[in-house]
Order: sequence, then C-alpha cells, then structure tokens
Amino acid sequence: MSKHQRKKGTLIVIGGHEDKTDGKTILKEVARMVGDGRLVVTTVASHQPEGYFEEYQRTFQDLGVKDVVELAIAERAEARQESRLDLLDGARGIFFTGGDQLRITSQLGDTPIYSRVQQLYEEGGVVAGTSAGASVMSDVMLVSGESDESHRIGELQMAPGLGLIHGVVIDQHFAERGRMGRLLGAVAKNPRYVGIGIDENTAVVVEGGELLRVLGSGAVYVIDGATVTSSNIADAKQDCTLSIYDVRLHVLSQGDGFDLGRREPMDADQLGKDPVAQDGR
Amino acid sequence: MSKHQRKKGTLIVIGGHEDKTDGKTILKEVARMVGDGRLVVTTVASHQPEGYFEEYQRTFQDLGVKDVVELAIAERAEARQESRLDLLDGARGIFFTGGDQLRITSQLGDTPIYSRVQQLYEEGGVVAGTSAGASVMSDVMLVSGESDESHRIGELQMAPGLGLIHGVVIDQHFAERGRMGRLLGAVAKNPRYVGIGIDENTAVVVEGGELLRVLGSGAVYVIDGATVTSSNIADAKQDCTLSIYDVRLHVLSQGDGFDLGRREPMDADQLGKDPVAQDGR
Repeated sequence: MSKHQRKKGTLIVIGGHEDKTDGKTILKEVARMVGDGRLVVTTVASHQPEGYFEEYQRTFQDLGVKDVVELAIAERAEARQESRLDLLDGARGIFFTGGDQLRITSQLGDTPIYSRVQQLYEEGGVVAGTSAGASVMSDVMLVSGESDESHRIGELQMAPGLGLIHGVVIDQHFAERGRMGRLLGAVAKNPRYVGIGIDENTAVVVEGGELLRVLGSGAVYVIDGATVTSSNIADAKQDCTLSIYDVRLHVLSQGDGFDLGRREPMDADQLGKDPVAQDGR
Repeated sequence: MSKHQRKKGTLIVIGGHEDKTDGKTILKEVARMVGDGRLVVTTVASHQPEGYFEEYQRTFQDLGVKDVVELAIAERAEARQESRLDLLDGARGIFFTGGDQLRITSQLGDTPIYSRVQQLYEEGGVVAGTSAGASVMSDVMLVSGESDESHRIGELQMAPGLGLIHGVVIDQHFAERGRMGRLLGAVAKNPRYVGIGIDENTAVVVEGGELLRVLGSGAVYVIDGATVTSSNIADAKQDCTLSIYDVRLHVLSQGDGFDLGRREPMDADQLGKDPVAQDGR
C-alpha cells in the first residue's frame, strides 16, 4: 500500500435499510470510528428529508456519538454558505442518508462543501453513506436501470460520482431488488471497473482506498470483468438482452474482504484480527 | 458426442411466462419440432389446472400442431391407467405446464407414465416444460428457497427430479424473482452441478443431452462452480449468509449456447447455422 493510500480515511458504504433498532452492527461501526468527534449527517440526497436527521441523531447518540449535527442542503447555492461550511469544522465523520444520487452530486459537485468532504477523508476521517449515499462514492455511479430483470443494452444511466473510491461501480439494495442484471451491464461497458453490489443492512468498509471488508447481515457481490472473453454490449442493438461470458463472481459475507488492487477475495484470517469481523460468523 | 447421446431427443426448458400471443418464439419452436405429430399437454403440476390446457391447445393449434391432447393427473393412481397411457401412443412431444414441481415428481415418479415420457425422449421426441415443468427436468431439482435475497445457509430445499438432463440444477423466473442467491446456494452445495437460471419468456433448447441453445427475450445465467476456491456452505451456522469465491458466471441471450460437457459458452457461429438462432440478434 502506498503512503498516499495510507493517509486516507475510511469509507463505510451501506446497501440501504441498515438496522437502526436491534444489533445496529453497521451504525455501531460508524460510531466507533467517529468516537468523541463530530458526526455531520447530511440529508442532501432527499427531496423530503423531514425526520431523517432526527432518527439518525437519536441512533448515533444512543451509540455514544455526542456531537451529531445536520447538514441540510435544499439548493446548490447553500453549498457555498459559511454557516454550512462551519458545520464541518473539526468533524470526524460525515454520513450521507438515502434518496437520489443525482441530488447529492448535482448539489455538491465542485462546491466548497465537497472540498471539505474530500479534505475530511484525506485527513483520516470517516465518510459513510447508505443507498444513494453509497452509490455516489465512486468515480462513475449508477443512476438508474431496471431492477428484477436481465440487462438490456442501452437501458442503464450512469453519471460522475464523488470520486472517493476508484475502480469500482457500486449498486445497493442488491439482492432485494434483483440488480445483478444492471450491475453486469455496468461492468460489461468497461471491465476496468469492478462491480460491487451491496445488500440491504450490509456494508463495505474501505480502508486505505482499496481494502474492502464486509459487515452486516447480507452479502456483497463482487463482479470482476477482467476475465470476460466475449460480450455483445457494443455489437447488439438497443433493447437486446446482454450476453457476457466468463465473468468472475465473488459473494462475500460478514468477515470476508476484498483487495481491490489485486482483485482477490480475502477471508477473515487474511484480513487479520479485526474484532468486528471475528465475531461475524 | 456418443451414440447414446445422439439417440436422445430434445428438451425445451422454459423459464415461465412464455409469450403465447405475439411472436410466440418459444412455443413456435416446440410446434416446429412436433410438426404433424401428437403433442400431449400435461397439467399435472397444477392443483387447479382449469383453463391451462385450453389456452395451450389454442396456441399450439394456431401454430400448426393439429393433434393436441390433455393429460390430466389429479391422483397418482391415474398415472397407471390405460386410458391415460394411451394418450402417449405415437406422441412426438409432451409439454409440462407450470405449478408445483413436487406435484409432477410425486405423481409421476416411477409410474408407467414416467416410463413413457422417458421412452418418448430416448426415441427422439420433444419434452418441453415451463416454470415448475422446467425445474423437474434435472436429476436433482430446486423445490423452494427465498427469492430477492442472498442465500442463507440451510434455507434451500431440493428433491429428486425427472432425470432427463444430467449435471445441472435449473431455476426459473430467474432475474424477475431475483434468484441468483438461491441458485448460487444450490451450486455451492456441490459444484459438480452447473446452475442454469432461466428468465421468463426464455428457454434453453437441449440437444444430444449436453448442447444448450438459448431462445427468447431474456437471459440464461450459467453458474459454474468448478473454479470456486472457498465457500462457507459447510462451515457456517444455519441462517448465515453464503460466502463463495471465484464463481465462473456466463450470461447468455438468444443465439448463444453452452456445451455442458466442456462447460464452455458458444456463440451463434460456433453453434452453427441454426435458423432460429441466426435471426435472434
């Protein structure tokens, strides 16, 4: 791992519907990492964010995070206001709630708020996001595409994401909404991106920019297209069903990891003695 | 291909909800193969088969099959009656409608009717089945398991199938019901079986027992576990989420094929000049 990567903080990428009432495995991990620092919860993804913040505030305070503040952004102009930038002063973490990924990137892209998020991450802070807040983490994100059906050529919409993690495309609510087809479609377009499909109440914790560790009750699907020998993505007519041969697929559950640099899965032993991973199975 | 395999007929394995009104691609292929012979439609899979037969009869007659008869079996004892056995005399094809796969196997297993179906197939006839009628084709079949979620250890139910095709486990309504998780669970149990997940209005045509060809509007997922390097299927507690590394996955659409013996996908060129496959894309 390079020095540059070592300097980075932690991403917690959540597939939506994380448990807020029982074991709270994932939010507990966010709280543990934020410790006694400030956690900024931003509801920018949501058109109707009423109540979102309050629920997260209660949950995180129960988990020991005392300083939980809300960053609400209804209009892009607000992402330049000092009062809002001040909320990030000395923050140790930021949490993106669910909603619409295009709202996050269109409101925050190339604004002072975005620079502060990047700075927080580069300086070792925690950036967490659920559902839409998960999809935005990568360089290129999925915006829309059909669930519960196989991929048809031309159906998928992608857009630039926040660029906090490189070399991946992330999808969420993965098994629950039958999204294997659309993530395969995304990987088929350019196999240099690894597809990461995250189930509900399941998260990928990313350390050093390329070491992934799974947390939560569901699975994480890693779609590696490097091995692909043939696909019709560029040849077939629009609306044709995707055909793709020789995909390498890993299904990871709590305790498993993945090394993005080497594109290899890792079990709990290889990941080292992580206390959370250890009591996973 | 051995002489034994050459003698076999054709299986048409349909993922459910095949088109009966517009292009009718799949049923047209069944009709083409049955030609001017008799087609037996059996509604044995259904607890309430009323109307099923009539719809198929109309559709197949429109497609040029003149001799379409119904084989209804409400009780297992009926599978020994001469009047029912006579229906199969000289038949060139049998079509299993949807319903419950356990109804098919529990009513027909080790009966004279089943022997006649086997004989029909061995002598070059067509055995087609949709939905439950698709699942029963293999040696071991999926009976139940959760849809739209990742596989949890211990959740899957399997049972002996009709054994017309070897070395596979078949699932249907595949992308539509988000069944990747459960088919991965089935393959994890014993990777000597290749998982075949068939979308709705999509079929696999099997010739010579091991050459698969895809027909219809959706995709066929081939899950090959031969490459798997690690899985928790035997180690983890019941209800834990499945973890499995290095699955080889192919997504096939109309015109594609798969050689079960070599476990290799084939494109239209490799499959040869099949008229149906050729106008597929």
